[in-house]
Amino acid sequence: MTTTVAPSPELFFTTLWGYQRTAALKSAVELEVFTAIQEGATTPEAIGRRCGASARGTRILCDYLVMLGFLTKSADSYALTQDSAIFLTKASPAYMGGTLKFLLSGPIVANHEFLTTAIREGGVPTAGDNTVSVENPVWEEFARAMVPMMAMPAQAIAEIVSSPSAPTRVLDIAAGHGIFGIAVAQRNPQARVVAVDWPRVLTVATENAAAMGVGDRHSTVPGDAFTVDWGAGYDLALITNFLHHFDVPTCTGFLRRVRAALVPGGRVAVLEFVPNEDRTSPPIPAAFALTMLAGTKGGDAYTMAELTAMLKDAGFGGVTRHDLQGPETVVIAHA
Amino acid sequence: MTTTVAPSPELFFTTLWGYQRTAALKSAVELEVFTAIQEGATTPEAIGRRCGASARGTRILCDYLVMLGFLTKSADSYALTQDSAIFLTKASPAYMGGTLKFLLSGPIVANHEFLTTAIREGGVPTAGDNTVSVENPVWEEFARAMVPMMAMPAQAIAEIVSSPSAPTRVLDIAAGHGIFGIAVAQRNPQARVVAVDWPRVLTVATENAAAMGVGDRHSTVPGDAFTVDWGAGYDLALITNFLHHFDVPTCTGFLRRVRAALVPGGRVAVLEFVPNEDRTSPPIPAAFALTMLAGTKGGDAYTMAELTAMLKDAGFGGVTRHDLQGPETVVIAHA
Repeated sequence: MTTTVAPSPELFFTTLWGYQRTAALKSAVELEVFTAIQEGATTPEAIGRRCGASARGTRILCDYLVMLGFLTKSADSYALTQDSAIFLTKASPAYMGGTLKFLLSGPIVANHEFLTTAIREGGVPTAGDNTVSVENPVWEEFARAMVPMMAMPAQAIAEIVSSPSAPTRVLDIAAGHGIFGIAVAQRNPQARVVAVDWPRVLTVATENAAAMGVGDRHSTVPGDAFTVDWGAGYDLALITNFLHHFDVPTCTGFLRRVRAALVPGGRVAVLEFVPNEDRTSPPIPAAFALTMLAGTKGGDAYTMAELTAMLKDAGFGGVTRHDLQGPETVVIAHA
Repeated sequence: MTTTVAPSPELFFTTLWGYQRTAALKSAVELEVFTAIQEGATTPEAIGRRCGASARGTRILCDYLVMLGFLTKSADSYALTQDSAIFLTKASPAYMGGTLKFLLSGPIVANHEFLTTAIREGGVPTAGDNTVSVENPVWEEFARAMVPMMAMPAQAIAEIVSSPSAPTRVLDIAAGHGIFGIAVAQRNPQARVVAVDWPRVLTVATENAAAMGVGDRHSTVPGDAFTVDWGAGYDLALITNFLHHFDVPTCTGFLRRVRAALVPGGRVAVLEFVPNEDRTSPPIPAAFALTMLAGTKGGDAYTMAELTAMLKDAGFGGVTRHDLQGPETVVIAHA
């Protein structure tokens, strides 16, 4: 090994203190620091007054947020970056602060306290996995918190799969907030959506469908997506952020079951974090595998080659890939 | 605001998942993944065998470590970066893995669960601060864990302050592991060190002084550095990683007390995380202010201007700055 640059422990320190970044962002969202700056507060004193926080604590937090790249600083005055204004101020339609309620909820974060054990055993050390196998309150939290994060991919999928004016029966699997099926129904007035999920979660989907003006074309089938009778004759099946919880044989078997519910030529749309074949890039899809290791028995962030193989093994053809603006990818295939 | 690049939530996601980076590094050190690769294991199967971990969990962890920059990957084979080999393999003299025992110990990490409250109140919401004000077992852990991290700055300080062959009386304040005073004694055979700290911590300093061959020139004064009688007539006082726990008036008063213990012309060496005057760079010193906000009543990462003002207010002169290889800075002044 040739030494070409001076040794540096910087990556070690930055990484070991990664948890502070999480904590700082969480506090900034809780205190509405970004919203305060958007409203015109720029000094530690003014931001602190708006947020009910000390000037000293606000100054230290805001300096940290500058260091991370969420704010800029000039003399003692802070300003938002473009992305902070778009994603972190409450009046913005793309506000994502609410997703922290799910993404940093107790059970999800606590999974990582046992990461070493999960690595030893290859998954969480329980008979089933600890978040997906039973009706879990975490999914109702998920359904309410994740709408802002999923609005953009939902619109993108609707654009890719919709025939604007053909009768379309849509099966929205593990629908959660229902946004994916709702987006298709909004774009195509002849689309009718059947949403499948646990009963408590479906109340969120039903609320959202009514609020978004498609309640009369939105119905629900409560139950376990692996076993419930969801009928047949669908033109389109949506499987969004679902396959990553399960191992390859489970995914393949599930896709076979989905294909049996589609008309010949019907389509499936799969939304996933899809890392490159090296599994180490891009950063967010690659990192998602660790989330699944910590939280499921056999889940993963599947590569395009793996998703294609699963779909083909389940009888699908014509597999195509559509990268979205954001960290996820849509994969479309034909029954 | 002009939009010049497409909006991206990437920084938001990367930051909110920062805690996973901490967890992954901690698991990799616990499982000795870096050491396993150094010893010749390169595939998930081989590394897993050496570490007592599943191939699946090892693969996902190692891919994540590649994404972070700790490893490289070629086909299914992982390799160490230069810095990982130096700082993260157990046979390396600069191995830093042991510092996680202190830096990620329960009480330190738990501070950040109450970060929002600390920001509201400007420090931890107790009468004193929660780590420094009393004899706390965390400092014994600190003393044992931090030697590898402090070996390099200790050597650097010894080099800056030592007259290799003049009688020198050294006061090593909040000595902890004792490494800073020991390094001076190793370099100057006529130096005699008095180490001040809580009694339990001083047992570690005494052990280290003996092990490092300077036990006969190393004595201890147990007690609170703010009140204990440590004598007078010192040529050199070492105040390493101590001032950041306290507010400016406390630091200034403390420096005055140190100056009174020095001979005229005696020197003080202060080791600190010193951010630039913008307080937002470089990343590690700037971030350290948040650690102090979360863990102390009034501590901070002080800028060079602030440290200089404190030293001058306490009667010191000839203040000079010495940046080290690593995230900390030495500030020297004359009594």
